[in-house]
Amino acid sequence: MMRIALDAMGGDHGPEVTIPAALAALRRYPGVSFSLIGDQPTIARLLDRTGTDTARCSVVHAPQRVEMSDRPSVALRNKRESSMRFALDAVRDGHAGACVSAGNTGALMGMARYVLKTLPGIERPAICAMLPSVNGSTHMLDLGANVDSSSEELFRFAVMGSVLAASIDQRPSPRVALLNIGEEEIKGNDRVKQTALLLEKSKLNYCGFAEGNDIYTGKFDVIVCDGFVGNVALKASEGVAGMLLELARQEFSRNLLTKLSALIAAPVLRRLRDRADPRRYNGASLLGLRGIVIKSHGGADIYSFGRAIDQAVVEMENAVPDRISSALEQFLVNQPLS
Amino acid sequence: MMRIALDAMGGDHGPEVTIPAALAALRRYPGVSFSLIGDQPTIARLLDRTGTDTARCSVVHAPQRVEMSDRPSVALRNKRESSMRFALDAVRDGHAGACVSAGNTGALMGMARYVLKTLPGIERPAICAMLPSVNGSTHMLDLGANVDSSSEELFRFAVMGSVLAASIDQRPSPRVALLNIGEEEIKGNDRVKQTALLLEKSKLNYCGFAEGNDIYTGKFDVIVCDGFVGNVALKASEGVAGMLLELARQEFSRNLLTKLSALIAAPVLRRLRDRADPRRYNGASLLGLRGIVIKSHGGADIYSFGRAIDQAVVEMENAVPDRISSALEQFLVNQPLS
Repeated sequence: MMRIALDAMGGDHGPEVTIPAALAALRRYPGVSFSLIGDQPTIARLLDRTGTDTARCSVVHAPQRVEMSDRPSVALRNKRESSMRFALDAVRDGHAGACVSAGNTGALMGMARYVLKTLPGIERPAICAMLPSVNGSTHMLDLGANVDSSSEELFRFAVMGSVLAASIDQRPSPRVALLNIGEEEIKGNDRVKQTALLLEKSKLNYCGFAEGNDIYTGKFDVIVCDGFVGNVALKASEGVAGMLLELARQEFSRNLLTKLSALIAAPVLRRLRDRADPRRYNGASLLGLRGIVIKSHGGADIYSFGRAIDQAVVEMENAVPDRISSALEQFLVNQPLS
Repeated sequence: MMRIALDAMGGDHGPEVTIPAALAALRRYPGVSFSLIGDQPTIARLLDRTGTDTARCSVVHAPQRVEMSDRPSVALRNKRESSMRFALDAVRDGHAGACVSAGNTGALMGMARYVLKTLPGIERPAICAMLPSVNGSTHMLDLGANVDSSSEELFRFAVMGSVLAASIDQRPSPRVALLNIGEEEIKGNDRVKQTALLLEKSKLNYCGFAEGNDIYTGKFDVIVCDGFVGNVALKASEGVAGMLLELARQEFSRNLLTKLSALIAAPVLRRLRDRADPRRYNGASLLGLRGIVIKSHGGADIYSFGRAIDQAVVEMENAVPDRISSALEQFLVNQPLS
């Protein structure tokens, strides 16, 4: 039985989303159980209400909750009895194989690092997420956990991303690319150029530089970048998609005629939305920790939070931290870093 | 009479696009004239063919052409008789008030810097472009000319972007923001934090940090970032928009029914495309030079290249380099940099 420690209180909607998502996951995965961690009365009420068989759910009361506005350092110091902290403790103590949380990213990062510790050779975990593309999807890291990463760190991101992609996509040798720019006289910055040298010498299936637009072409399985760049790229992408959606909404609701055409085009628009639906890609992995931690988008709905749970299940099935640990060891032996 | 030096041979389509775009601009702007620089016979043929009054066009023969694949350093050394170089020479010698080129970005940057020189306090020009948003548009720089910019350089980008936005949008005090990430425990990297301190102390209308998604909300008039980050954000945005377009194409062409609904929704889809049309936003400014240089997208069509010409006209009307020079001087006096 694989057990997931669920931070039931995390995210904008808290248990109203996390509990139904967990119960739905119980139906999807007969081999999975949950520790539902948070305000016991609230969780119990939600469990009763749905009337689901709760044999595979235990409720763990946590008197505190990490707020979205909590500073990570403050959360780490003062929220030792929070649902987020208890969920991480459960992974550390072997009571659970993964932690899933929709809570405050900075706090989750800081707590996970403190409670679970990082793997040998890793200073800070990296955030890795799947992004949609015309064909398939691409794993991208780091998406904001690290800034000013050295070339050695970027190289380790590549190793970790490659292991994750191999596990999730069942692909023996994922195509790894390094995010760079093509406009410069001397292409890219020094760190990227040095990372490229490390990758060229490595056993990874390194395929060269990717530019920003390659994130969505499916040309690569893993795209590696500094957290500052990755975060901006991700948010800019969300911004464009949001703008196009808003413009579409405005244009289709302009008058009776356009509303009618929206009605007629509705099945196509729905399929289009489904294919690019960011909810499908919810669930970022905090890689480089001695345990599986999945960060859901704070605003996730039940379906979307379920995708983060799916991610946790796949990583447990594939023992991702162990595989990353071996890969890092192998690469660190073959290729001493710093 | 304002004169534009046109690199007629630049871009994927060369004179087939640049000449008709220039002739159309002559009709739009009675006070504008052109030096059409490139292969004389080709240009002459295109002028004859259209039968336009060419009193405001002089043709300047340039025996060489900078190729898209030319390395900037090689172009600088070996293409001294190229249309691109002659266009920049014309600006330097006062024969033209602006250069417009759809050629190789790196070569244009390098040549412009060598031929025109940068303004006092500016080491390398920055690339600034307008990006669409739900309401209005946003000027963003640098988009790839500089990597690893110092906080002093980022501050100067802010000054230049603010002057450009004030000129183009006729806005006395443009809202300036600094691109940053919000996911980190300690938000942002050191350079961004130091730049924020410089901006807070300045007379610019500094409005704090922007995240990637803010590029497309219209919350700010100017967004400042390092060229690496800006380039990735821009390309990632293009990537998402391209993916959504491709998915829409696939879904609408799936079968007879969906094709029919595309037909019915066509007017709405066309308006939507027009509002987000990247061609409308063609024409990036190379800021910080002692002259106006506008870089068009290499793949620009006639309409789109015309937008780059429009950009040159606005900048000439507003004497943007002079205004930037004064602003830099003012800011350098009030606030000595490095």
